[in-house]
Amino acid sequence: MEKKEKILVIGAGLCGSLLALRLAQRGYEVELFESRPDLRKVDISAGRSINLALSDRGLKALRLCGVEDKAKEICIPMKGRLMHDRAGNTFESDYSGRTGEFINSISRGDLNALLLDAAEEHENVNIHFNAACQHVDFENKIAYFKDYTTKNKFQQSADVIIGTDGAGSILRKSYYLEKKFLFSYSQMYLTHGYKELEIPAKNGTHQISKNHLHIWPRGDFMLIALPNMDGSFTVTLFLSFDEGEYNFNNLTNEKVINEFFEKEFPDALALIPNIKEEFANNPTSPLGTVKCSPWSYQENTLLMGDAAHAIVPFYGQGMNASFEDVVVFDEVLNQNLGSWQVIFKVYEKNRKKDTDAIADLAIDNFYEMRDHVANPLFKEKRKIEMDLEKHFPNRYFSKYSLVTFNENIGYNEAMLRGRAQDKALLKLIADKDIKTSLNMTKSELEIVLKKVEDETQEMLREDKIAKL
Amino acid sequence: MEKKEKILVIGAGLCGSLLALRLAQRGYEVELFESRPDLRKVDISAGRSINLALSDRGLKALRLCGVEDKAKEICIPMKGRLMHDRAGNTFESDYSGRTGEFINSISRGDLNALLLDAAEEHENVNIHFNAACQHVDFENKIAYFKDYTTKNKFQQSADVIIGTDGAGSILRKSYYLEKKFLFSYSQMYLTHGYKELEIPAKNGTHQISKNHLHIWPRGDFMLIALPNMDGSFTVTLFLSFDEGEYNFNNLTNEKVINEFFEKEFPDALALIPNIKEEFANNPTSPLGTVKCSPWSYQENTLLMGDAAHAIVPFYGQGMNASFEDVVVFDEVLNQNLGSWQVIFKVYEKNRKKDTDAIADLAIDNFYEMRDHVANPLFKEKRKIEMDLEKHFPNRYFSKYSLVTFNENIGYNEAMLRGRAQDKALLKLIADKDIKTSLNMTKSELEIVLKKVEDETQEMLREDKIAKL
Repeated sequence: MEKKEKILVIGAGLCGSLLALRLAQRGYEVELFESRPDLRKVDISAGRSINLALSDRGLKALRLCGVEDKAKEICIPMKGRLMHDRAGNTFESDYSGRTGEFINSISRGDLNALLLDAAEEHENVNIHFNAACQHVDFENKIAYFKDYTTKNKFQQSADVIIGTDGAGSILRKSYYLEKKFLFSYSQMYLTHGYKELEIPAKNGTHQISKNHLHIWPRGDFMLIALPNMDGSFTVTLFLSFDEGEYNFNNLTNEKVINEFFEKEFPDALALIPNIKEEFANNPTSPLGTVKCSPWSYQENTLLMGDAAHAIVPFYGQGMNASFEDVVVFDEVLNQNLGSWQVIFKVYEKNRKKDTDAIADLAIDNFYEMRDHVANPLFKEKRKIEMDLEKHFPNRYFSKYSLVTFNENIGYNEAMLRGRAQDKALLKLIADKDIKTSLNMTKSELEIVLKKVEDETQEMLREDKIAKL
Repeated sequence: MEKKEKILVIGAGLCGSLLALRLAQRGYEVELFESRPDLRKVDISAGRSINLALSDRGLKALRLCGVEDKAKEICIPMKGRLMHDRAGNTFESDYSGRTGEFINSISRGDLNALLLDAAEEHENVNIHFNAACQHVDFENKIAYFKDYTTKNKFQQSADVIIGTDGAGSILRKSYYLEKKFLFSYSQMYLTHGYKELEIPAKNGTHQISKNHLHIWPRGDFMLIALPNMDGSFTVTLFLSFDEGEYNFNNLTNEKVINEFFEKEFPDALALIPNIKEEFANNPTSPLGTVKCSPWSYQENTLLMGDAAHAIVPFYGQGMNASFEDVVVFDEVLNQNLGSWQVIFKVYEKNRKKDTDAIADLAIDNFYEMRDHVANPLFKEKRKIEMDLEKHFPNRYFSKYSLVTFNENIGYNEAMLRGRAQDKALLKLIADKDIKTSLNMTKSELEIVLKKVEDETQEMLREDKIAKL
C-alpha cells in the first residue's frame, strides 16, 4: 500500500471511532484523540447505562466496516412501541407491518468499546485518551490539546483534521468564533429537557416487555424506556423546564416528585425504586438541534456526526445518521476526486439535505410521540399502515419505515414522500374516503392503497407546482 | 406625570430612534446610545444614498408616534415592479389591483434624522452619539461603552436595557457567549451577497420611471433599483459570492465587470457612469437571517428590531417589521401587566411567530424575484390576482397584499393564508380549471374567485388535518 496522508480525528465517540476504523481500512494514518478516559478501562457512565436505537442505516455503516455481526450480538430487538396510559393499560403499535423490520436497543458504551477495539486492531491507528481538544487552528491544520492526567498542553498537526467531537464541537466553535468565512449556524433548543432514570432487573430479567420501546405519552410530557442486556431499562423523562403544572424547575423535592409520578406514571413509579436519588443526582439535560454550513474549511478541516448536525432523540436516528455520514463520506472517497477541498464540498452537497431532513423529522416526532400517538385518527392511520405493509410489503412504506428501514433512500426523500403520504392518508380517513374497518380483505385493502397512492401523488404534484 | 423608570436603549438606528420616541411619549426616562456620530451633522453614508421600502406596517408605527405625515413628505411612491429583460424590453407588475396601495422609497438617513429630531423634542430623552456599546452585563443591568471621540470607557445602568443595536447586536452576543440560559440562536447566510451602485440624476430628474421598483431578473442573480428624491437611483446587485460564470469573487477587474454588465444589464450599464469606481470601492455585503429566543433576560433586558430578527431585504419589510415591533410592544405596555418580565414574555409570545414568518417570506421572495417573476405561470397568476383585487377589492388579497398592505393581519397569518392561496391559484391555472383569458367579465371573474376561495380553504383544511 502506498504511503497515505495523516488524518487527525478529534473525538472517539461513536462516529469518530467508526470513522477512524474506516479510514484505517482505507490505508490512512489515523491519529484519534478523545477527551475522556478509555471507556473500556474506566466506567465513565456515572452508574447509568445509556442505550440508543440502532437501525438499518447504522447497521449498513457497521456492515461496511465489517463489525455488523459483532454489534448484533449486543442488540435487543424492539418490534414496536408499547403505550402505557395513566390507568396502567397498554396498547401496542408496531414499527412495521413487514416481518423482520425492527429497531434495536444497544448500549452506547458497549458499542463504542467494540468500535475502539476494531479500530485499534489496525496498526495505522493511534488512539489518545484524556486528550481534550481546546482549539483548532484550521488555517494551519493544527489542533491544540490538554492532557487531563498530566495537565500538559500539546499540539498536533496533520494533512487533514476531522472533527467528530459531538454537539459541543471545538472545531465548529473555532469556525464560529474566528469569523474567517460566512458560517451559517443554528442552535435551537426545545422548551423541554430530559432526565434518565432506571428500572432495575428483577432476578436478572426484564420486568416489562423487553421487545418494545415503552412510551407513557401525556400530552405535554412523556416517559420512555429502552431495554438493556442486563435486564434493566433506561427510562427517560421528557418534560418542560418551566411550563405546566409540573416541570423540571419545580420538581425539586421528594414529595412533589412522587406526587407527579403517582398521578401520571403510577405503573412506572412502582418499577423505579431509587427515584428519589436518581432524580436528585442525574443531570437534567437540554434538547438541542444544531445545523451549520459549510462543514469544511478549504482542504484542511471537516465536521462530521453530531459536530455537524446534532439532533433531538425522538426519531432514534442520531447515531444512525452519524454512522451514515461515514458511508456517504466513504462513497465520495471512492470517486477519487483528488483534492480534499473537492471531496469535502461534494460530501456536504450530497449529505446536508439529508441531515437537515432528519433534524426536522426528529422534532416532528417529538410532537408525534408526546401528543399524537394516543389520538384516534393517528391510531387509525397506523393500523391501516400496518395492514398495507403486511399485505403489500413491496408497495407500501410508511414514513417511519422510509426513514428507519430503507437505508438506500436518503432522509430528505423519505421526509418528502413520507409527509405527503401521511397528509394524504389522514385526509382520506378524515373525509371517510377509505374504508377503515377492522378486518379488510386484501382486495378491499388494495382499493385503499390505490387511493392513498393517487392522493400522495396529487399532494406531491401540488407541492411541485407551488414551487413553479 | 408620575416618576417613571429609566430605560437605556442601545442603538439609535431606525428602530431605536422610534422606540425612544414612543417610550418618551409614554413618560419614561430614555437614555439612547449610538455608536456612530450624529448622522444629522456628519455624512456617514460614504457618499452613497441608501433607501428602503416603507409600507403600511411601518406607516402605522409612524402614525402611532405622530410622525407619519412628516415621513410621507420624503416618500416616493412605487406602484409596482418594472422588469427589464436583456434586450432592454420592460414589463410592469403592479403590487396591488386596488387603487391607493403602493410602497414607498425613502432615504434611510433622512428618516432616521426625522425620528431623532422628534425624539429629541422630548426633554426626557438624552441621545449620546459616538458611544459604542462593548458589552452588556445583563444580570446587573449595566452596559459598558467606549466613546469614539474621547476614547474614554464608561458604564451606564438602568431599570431596563433594550438592545436595538441591529443585526450585529452586542446585547445578543452577550446572551450567546455567557451561556447563562438556553439561548436558541441562528444566523443563516444566503450564497449571495450584494453591492450598491448608483444611477445618477440627469438634469435633476430621474432617468427611468421613478414610480417603480426596477428589477433586472436573471435567474441566478439580479439587479434592482429604487428611486431617491434627488433624481438618482440606488442600484443593488445581488450575486453569488463564488458560484456561476460571474460572481463577486471573479468580478475583480474593469474588463470582466464591463463584460458582465454588457451581457446581462446593457440598459442599466448605460446609466451607471462610475461603475468602475463604485464596483471597486463599495463594499460587498452578506445577506443574513438572524433568529433567536428568548429575546429577554428576566426583568432586565430585551432585544428588539434587527437585533432580535434580522431578515434579508427581498420583501421590503426589514424596517417595517422593526417599526411594527414598537407597535406590538406599545400594545403590551397598554395592558398594564406590572412586571417587566411579564411584559417581555407576553411581547415575545405575541410577536415572535410574526417575525419568524417575515424572515421566511423574505427568503421565499429572493427566489421569487430572481427566478419566478419572468415565469409564464407566475405572470398569469399575478395578472389574475390584479384583476381579482381590482374587481373584488374587499374580497381578494394576494399574499403580497396581505404582507404589505394589511397591517392589521400578522405576518404569520399573512404567510399561512397567502401560501395556501398561491398554491391553490397555481394549481387551478396549471390544471386549466379556471379561465385566464385577457378580458374577463366580472361574472367570469367571480367564478374564478369562488374556485380560488374554495381551493384555498381546502388547502388550509388539509394542512390542519395533517397536523391532527
